[in-house]
Amino acid sequence: MNLVPGTLEEVAVNRCFGGWHRRYRHRSATLHCDMVFAVYLPPQAASGTVPALYWLSGLTCNDENFMHKAGAMRVAAALGMAIVAPDTSPRGAAVPGDPEGAWDFGHGAGFYVNATRAPWAEHYRMHDYVVYELPALIEANLPIDARRGISGHSMGGHGALVCALRNPGRYRSLSALAPISHALASPWGQKAFARYLGEDRAAWKAWDACELIAGASERLPLLVDQGGADGFLLEQLQPETLRQACAAAGHPLKLRLQAGYDHSYFFIASFIDDHLHHHAAALLT
Amino acid sequence: MNLVPGTLEEVAVNRCFGGWHRRYRHRSATLHCDMVFAVYLPPQAASGTVPALYWLSGLTCNDENFMHKAGAMRVAAALGMAIVAPDTSPRGAAVPGDPEGAWDFGHGAGFYVNATRAPWAEHYRMHDYVVYELPALIEANLPIDARRGISGHSMGGHGALVCALRNPGRYRSLSALAPISHALASPWGQKAFARYLGEDRAAWKAWDACELIAGASERLPLLVDQGGADGFLLEQLQPETLRQACAAAGHPLKLRLQAGYDHSYFFIASFIDDHLHHHAAALLT
Repeated sequence: MNLVPGTLEEVAVNRCFGGWHRRYRHRSATLHCDMVFAVYLPPQAASGTVPALYWLSGLTCNDENFMHKAGAMRVAAALGMAIVAPDTSPRGAAVPGDPEGAWDFGHGAGFYVNATRAPWAEHYRMHDYVVYELPALIEANLPIDARRGISGHSMGGHGALVCALRNPGRYRSLSALAPISHALASPWGQKAFARYLGEDRAAWKAWDACELIAGASERLPLLVDQGGADGFLLEQLQPETLRQACAAAGHPLKLRLQAGYDHSYFFIASFIDDHLHHHAAALLT
Repeated sequence: MNLVPGTLEEVAVNRCFGGWHRRYRHRSATLHCDMVFAVYLPPQAASGTVPALYWLSGLTCNDENFMHKAGAMRVAAALGMAIVAPDTSPRGAAVPGDPEGAWDFGHGAGFYVNATRAPWAEHYRMHDYVVYELPALIEANLPIDARRGISGHSMGGHGALVCALRNPGRYRSLSALAPISHALASPWGQKAFARYLGEDRAAWKAWDACELIAGASERLPLLVDQGGADGFLLEQLQPETLRQACAAAGHPLKLRLQAGYDHSYFFIASFIDDHLHHHAAALLT
């Protein structure tokens, strides 16, 4: 493939709930590789621009998981809101992955940071890709405007929180499902940060939701759902630390513990409609 | 595994929309192999038995595709209806598959017939499994009663039509999405029937929806959705033949051609709610 940066190659298109699910490949100048993303365009996009919810997926996912499994397009169609689902890391044979082939680092595990250490720094810049390059590409080529919301699950919940908290004014709405709330204190985050950012833990704070909330200059109301039977809850996700950080900072938080629910897409599907309405309240007014 | 016939081994359980998605493994006396099926139990199943929609999936699928991708559980929960998703063929190393390893015969492609030819006849008896063994097992072990509806997609749409038409009184409701309406005249059906049933085409008629409709003794109102941009429409699915067969027989049919939609789960998800309500009208009264 010789894709020109700034142009989109259509990979797939499917009608869905009166709108369109589309996948595009493009050359990323930020990540130095070809990337695929998915977008749901609601019926309203046929006659004007619509706002978009950027959805960041979790470990091992790509652009497809949310679009296939969340059941979000029905309400997005009714509301007139697009959904953008990026991949979760740079990809391709030229992009280094986990040396041991593990699923929690490297391909599928970009953690939405800008890596600073070799060999990761050349490609693993998912923060800048998600926050800057991808919206610019989308808003220049698709009927989607700059009204942006952001949400995600697990590693992607961490990503949504960090992207919004680091970039005041860039998003109008924010939510997360089962986010890694305090990445620098979680085993997944520690493994990733040590490699992408180096061993100096002071540098990790700029990529940790609980740390960023303390000094945030913007206080977007935050909706978080967390399954009560999620096997990752205490060690990896730490919602109670998020609750304390929000309380200490005066950050508006609605944290809902959903008894009996686990970490799967069955949990996401059960509550995604509430998140879509949460974003619509900010994006469509 | 040494599973006792008639008993269920729980493989997975996930809360979903206030109810439960569960997967079970069991020893099938009909298929002579271990099988896995999925069931969605709505919240109402906690306090009594509920009716069930049996969903038959298409080529290459197993019990997971519909549960993960159709977005059906929201409405099933609201209505108080279970969903049962069997696998699409016998499975396992002891079960012969396609000699050439193709995806449209053998494993994942049981076509919901009772095979009569060696080596298929020993295991490939999906009709009897879906119509008799599985409901008996479920109704004896789970809070699901004998109010049964049946639906499916593609090969599973063919299966739903054939299972209902061959067994008057067994189902209260019937629908299909993009069914293989006239299997004996479709390349997929011809390949499968020639092997499972032998070269005598007279025997194929007992497993063909359009042929069965002519002589049916029960006329369950039939809802069929078909994507207008489905690449399999004319050669494999032949909805117009179904329309003609229903018209000739006086069989009540609502056939909706959905312009622009393809054969994927994006199509199924877009219209599954209408099917759930179609079944609920018969199952919940």
